[in-house]
Amino acid sequence: MNPLGAPVRIDAAGNLRAVYPAAQANAPHLLIGSHLDTVPNAGAYDGALGVVLAVALLEELQGKQLPFAIEVIGFSEEEGVRFGTPFIGSRALVGSLNKDLLSTQDAQGISVRNAIEAFGLNPEEIPQAQFQNGALACLEFHIEQGPVLESLNQPLAAVEAIAGQSRLELTFFGRANHAGTTPMHLRHDALAGAAEWIGTVERTAQAISGLVATVGTIEAKPGAANVIASEARLTLDVRHASDYLRTRAVQDLIRAAQGIATHRGLSVRQRTLLSQSTVAMDAFLTREIEHAMLKTGCKPHRMVSGAGHDAMILAEKFPSAMIFLRTPGGISHHPTESVSVDDVEMAIACGLHLLDQLSASPEFHKRINRA
Amino acid sequence: MNPLGAPVRIDAAGNLRAVYPAAQANAPHLLIGSHLDTVPNAGAYDGALGVVLAVALLEELQGKQLPFAIEVIGFSEEEGVRFGTPFIGSRALVGSLNKDLLSTQDAQGISVRNAIEAFGLNPEEIPQAQFQNGALACLEFHIEQGPVLESLNQPLAAVEAIAGQSRLELTFFGRANHAGTTPMHLRHDALAGAAEWIGTVERTAQAISGLVATVGTIEAKPGAANVIASEARLTLDVRHASDYLRTRAVQDLIRAAQGIATHRGLSVRQRTLLSQSTVAMDAFLTREIEHAMLKTGCKPHRMVSGAGHDAMILAEKFPSAMIFLRTPGGISHHPTESVSVDDVEMAIACGLHLLDQLSASPEFHKRINRA
Repeated sequence: MNPLGAPVRIDAAGNLRAVYPAAQANAPHLLIGSHLDTVPNAGAYDGALGVVLAVALLEELQGKQLPFAIEVIGFSEEEGVRFGTPFIGSRALVGSLNKDLLSTQDAQGISVRNAIEAFGLNPEEIPQAQFQNGALACLEFHIEQGPVLESLNQPLAAVEAIAGQSRLELTFFGRANHAGTTPMHLRHDALAGAAEWIGTVERTAQAISGLVATVGTIEAKPGAANVIASEARLTLDVRHASDYLRTRAVQDLIRAAQGIATHRGLSVRQRTLLSQSTVAMDAFLTREIEHAMLKTGCKPHRMVSGAGHDAMILAEKFPSAMIFLRTPGGISHHPTESVSVDDVEMAIACGLHLLDQLSASPEFHKRINRA
Repeated sequence: MNPLGAPVRIDAAGNLRAVYPAAQANAPHLLIGSHLDTVPNAGAYDGALGVVLAVALLEELQGKQLPFAIEVIGFSEEEGVRFGTPFIGSRALVGSLNKDLLSTQDAQGISVRNAIEAFGLNPEEIPQAQFQNGALACLEFHIEQGPVLESLNQPLAAVEAIAGQSRLELTFFGRANHAGTTPMHLRHDALAGAAEWIGTVERTAQAISGLVATVGTIEAKPGAANVIASEARLTLDVRHASDYLRTRAVQDLIRAAQGIATHRGLSVRQRTLLSQSTVAMDAFLTREIEHAMLKTGCKPHRMVSGAGHDAMILAEKFPSAMIFLRTPGGISHHPTESVSVDDVEMAIACGLHLLDQLSASPEFHKRINRA
């Protein structure tokens, strides 16, 4: 970054930040970035590609200065693997870090406070990582981490929203009995009830466009081959861009579970673990991205992200947008995670068109002047 | 037993045995007994009630001697909890113990050989526990351990067969993917496939009279709420009195699993853990038990046992029969396991009628003379 005139600093939350100056001093900042961490046994592109693309865009500018500064950010700790708390870097930037975070401990009993100090930063200075003067806009490039763009033969997409998410735990309770001596009509099989409900979850999601619903974990008790299950506990993950459709689907699925339980002489209990609203990306920026895609020779396409991203946090304070890159096989968080060189070239070209458009846009100049 | 003229000995396999003499010396033996062990955290009646009922029958004879001796047996180690090998006592009696048994170890690494020696017996003498001269017949009283008799308002039943049993492990393989970014139509969800198959298992068993089929264990991998399952492993337990219907049902269910896998873009692998044929009880003895029930004022009723019993092992060598007692709530292997005093009285009365009938039966006298 130094040859580009953008020296890198590290803020108190561990974010790497470098400002590429605008044509005029004190111009507001367009943030471009993504996260530098990923999960264990992951691939090379989740997060990091979005940071590298920001740097590549600056290189492609070849010293040309724009009506806004470009701040490249490599966010720290997006995944939350170590402390169970995701988005630490981007939350620090918008000033929405929970006060209890510093005392949160990892599996070895090391607190966030100790980890930050051991890394050579001062946890007391985290509030200074907050973006004080407001950002003009935030842009995040990220691999899709799903199979949709590949299935559509589409290299890029503008993200219009990050889907809201509900997570629940459900437990069906029946009666443990001998698998050999209990006729079918005298059973209260918690696992059979849970299996019926998994079918309902799948059909419900298939029937509502854009809804995804997943049972990813299940446990049957007592868990013996020759004993009818007295208990089956499972998790439900439901996401949709419409909070209304998502919460209605969750209510419908809970009612369906109760119906199955009643019909089978079981009972069911549920517990909500998470209920997160949909976050819309900035409509103006998303339209501009579609225009840039068109200029790049890529059919404009917009989609909803089913996964959370730093842009979701940044959107709490700043107009934010995302560009997804096609992910071969939809494979992410795995060593075989990949992107194609052609798609990366197209993303850079699209980004350059976007910077051109924003530099010339009357609407964006209004925003620059307001900032 | 001593006051009844039946001194108790312990054989080399740990079975308690006492012979109540016949009217004539060298008369053949009718064996009556059940097992003395049960599972951890069990009730008071599984097994032990059948031994106590044998003793009660001898008491009720009040010294009367019959054309056959009655050997009461309290079998050792029927459940197989400690060494994973059930029916050790009854297998020793019929001489069908596996030669590797003595070196089999428990969870603490103690072998059957060491355990028998520590108990004060000589493992080399186990072959002497074998019933050398043939038994005239074997009779086992046992609690039903299921809910059928209670649901029929029936105190007793003659067992006509011990159902054959198949046990399999099936694994569905799909593709792990992000629960948020993978649309429903692009999923290969191993757990959803397994759930559909559990429904098929249940409907198949419900459609075939007398068939029971159970999925008692299930495991989904990777087992995270936000990851679509790449693998779902479950067990299948299938039982029926007809080996043909049982094996056909198993084949149908495997085919159904393959069909579900194909339809969903999954694969499936199965492994047979156990395939045990049905064991018929002696037809003559079963009819005599029904007659005795009638004389006792109990509607004759016969049923198939879904669980294994010592009588199943004894039937390999000797004509064998079983009488089931109603089990309140079908609850067994649990501290609340129970029987009613009235049902126990009826079982004793039925047993006495049976002994009377056998003493007077021309068919049984043929057997006595052949023995």
